[in-house]
Amino acid sequence: MIFGISVAADAPVRQASLRQHNLRLVLAQVASLSPQSRADIAAATGLTRATVSTLVDDLVSGSLLREVSPTPRSGAGRPGVGLVLNDADGPAGLGLEINVDYLAACVLDLAGTVRHREIQPGDRRGVDPAQVLSSAAALASRAMLAAEDQGLTIAGTAVAVPGLVSPDRVIRLAPNLGWRDVDASGFTPGPLTVENEANLAALGELHHGSPGGSTSFLYVSGEIGIGAGIVLQGNLFRGARGWSGELGHVAVNPGGPACRCGAHGCLEQYAGQEALLPPGTSVSDLAAAADSGSEPDLGRLSTAASALGVTIAGVINLLDVDTVILGGIYAPLTPWLRPGIEAEIANRVLTAAWSPVRIHPAALGSDAAVIGAAGAVIRAVHEEPAAWLLPIGPLRHRDSGKP
Amino acid sequence: MIFGISVAADAPVRQASLRQHNLRLVLAQVASLSPQSRADIAAATGLTRATVSTLVDDLVSGSLLREVSPTPRSGAGRPGVGLVLNDADGPAGLGLEINVDYLAACVLDLAGTVRHREIQPGDRRGVDPAQVLSSAAALASRAMLAAEDQGLTIAGTAVAVPGLVSPDRVIRLAPNLGWRDVDASGFTPGPLTVENEANLAALGELHHGSPGGSTSFLYVSGEIGIGAGIVLQGNLFRGARGWSGELGHVAVNPGGPACRCGAHGCLEQYAGQEALLPPGTSVSDLAAAADSGSEPDLGRLSTAASALGVTIAGVINLLDVDTVILGGIYAPLTPWLRPGIEAEIANRVLTAAWSPVRIHPAALGSDAAVIGAAGAVIRAVHEEPAAWLLPIGPLRHRDSGKP
Repeated sequence: MIFGISVAADAPVRQASLRQHNLRLVLAQVASLSPQSRADIAAATGLTRATVSTLVDDLVSGSLLREVSPTPRSGAGRPGVGLVLNDADGPAGLGLEINVDYLAACVLDLAGTVRHREIQPGDRRGVDPAQVLSSAAALASRAMLAAEDQGLTIAGTAVAVPGLVSPDRVIRLAPNLGWRDVDASGFTPGPLTVENEANLAALGELHHGSPGGSTSFLYVSGEIGIGAGIVLQGNLFRGARGWSGELGHVAVNPGGPACRCGAHGCLEQYAGQEALLPPGTSVSDLAAAADSGSEPDLGRLSTAASALGVTIAGVINLLDVDTVILGGIYAPLTPWLRPGIEAEIANRVLTAAWSPVRIHPAALGSDAAVIGAAGAVIRAVHEEPAAWLLPIGPLRHRDSGKP
Repeated sequence: MIFGISVAADAPVRQASLRQHNLRLVLAQVASLSPQSRADIAAATGLTRATVSTLVDDLVSGSLLREVSPTPRSGAGRPGVGLVLNDADGPAGLGLEINVDYLAACVLDLAGTVRHREIQPGDRRGVDPAQVLSSAAALASRAMLAAEDQGLTIAGTAVAVPGLVSPDRVIRLAPNLGWRDVDASGFTPGPLTVENEANLAALGELHHGSPGGSTSFLYVSGEIGIGAGIVLQGNLFRGARGWSGELGHVAVNPGGPACRCGAHGCLEQYAGQEALLPPGTSVSDLAAAADSGSEPDLGRLSTAASALGVTIAGVINLLDVDTVILGGIYAPLTPWLRPGIEAEIANRVLTAAWSPVRIHPAALGSDAAVIGAAGAVIRAVHEEPAAWLLPIGPLRHRDSGKP
């Protein structure tokens, strides 16, 4: 996982990893329902009251949980102090997005609420990467100030880019920005991850959108390029080197038109933004024209839908996902794209007859990637709370067994 | 995982799961290098000598490990008793394969050695499924007797079938056998899994073949139909419902020839066994003809290679695997298929320039699926030794701290 630090499967379970596991468990319990008392948490997790108290104390003093005034309970006994995720002065996640026609920043608190948001439109094609990174750094620094003003501490930054990123945070190739081997490792301070935008958008939809209740889906990102994020059983599927999801360069027709990648008949040639939108027109122009029955516009949408359908059917045959989320420019065009995609799925997917595939527009629209980025930082804290507590945790005096 | 029983990620870690984890750890340590003494295992795992002794005693009395005579050691101290995987009278895995033109059975012991093997050639197209299952049951029963004669106990059976299987072990669709909704849940006694043959073949190559050192690969199974098994970071990727890998029905050319699945231009039409081999000829006939320069044969191979290449390039763009294993009839044809596949990958895969993809023939040839099936049973024991010990474990007197 992004930012994730996990114990090797073949390591012996010792005290330290037990504590890590149980801190995560308590935090997840409060995240699932709050406020909850220490007694509620003990009952729900099966941990002893004393253990829960020690863990909660660590999480409160480490600013991951905060106490709220007791809520009346039914039944006997004193009402317990309620615990909630610390959205007042806890850690927060900073998400950035560098895209071809906009930059964006977003801050999420520990509870997943958006606390700051900035978008800077403007075409970045042909602009010097250093200049784009410097604009992104300025956005980041304003977002950090905005977070600080609200009492939050940025735990880390995740950056969404429309391209292939290596683990050392070098953007190897972003064809539609015209970038190759751009080092994005130090352009903004603090812990930093750089990740493909479709992957982060898929995570955004999974954790902050509503993928129709499914935890196994294909997120299709329609921009100048076409990317995909693959989520399987609640986990982002990044591929062996993190370069999965290059849906735009899957062949629809090997003898088709030349693509800027050098191959022929790639999906982007039939369904990319430039194939769908005549120069100077917007997605809402296209939606309006389609709505009024314009034949050429409906024709382009139908061609794109068939090409998307053939490709998506191939993905479903291969990966067996039950839900497809249309993101980016495809989200508002879903009503016109869905029938053509569904027809190809019905025709080409072997399991289609007894296992229907649902097609939804992205719930977060074009914010999916930047929200997914900020959310990835927050999720890393949720998954490894011990890492966030570490600087103060092990040296601090620890109470135990408090009521 | 197949047969796998795993603790939910959000469960508290308690004694029972600690013991499970550490039993697995000790077993894996012996599997990685043997013989090893209790002291060696303690040193390698970081567990205490006393804990290791208790765990080893459980594994020995549960017939998963056995003791061998002490081996001389360098350095001071008495030589420890050596421990090895119990391949003498331990559990064994039974693999079965039901395919269009043969049935097969295979027994593997705990160390992964083949202890029994039977193949029954014969075309099963149009044969009543009940009759085929009854032949397979007869193979299974002979394999069980052969295992028993060698002192082994069959821990479970896994069956490889060329089709889509639901979790209740109903074969929903096996197009080339002509099967639909065939219940395979009880045709042979004992714990039973039914799984797609390409998935099991991929596992066979992963654990018992040699996938070029890669743990992320696409296994392509060329038979009457074309299937695929996807292995990512050492794990089989089964899809949301276990129906991943239907590579044969990915479109190469949406306007191409009609496929028996109802769609047009599927990979099977260009590269399936029936497209490659004229009626009445075998794979070795084709290899011999190609070797002698026969133009029509080289032409069919070249068409198949291009179609495979376009489809495989799409998979690599999507999933970012670094290795492709050609199995089934493709294994012996690799020398003729590889160049055409490589050309399409070079042309179509965005990351191909800096991230080469290797193409190998399957090391296990056409035995991959049945060995993978037997291996899946054995791996389930390795992954969950506590489940195998359970019937006797918790009630048994337990020694501790033995030297």
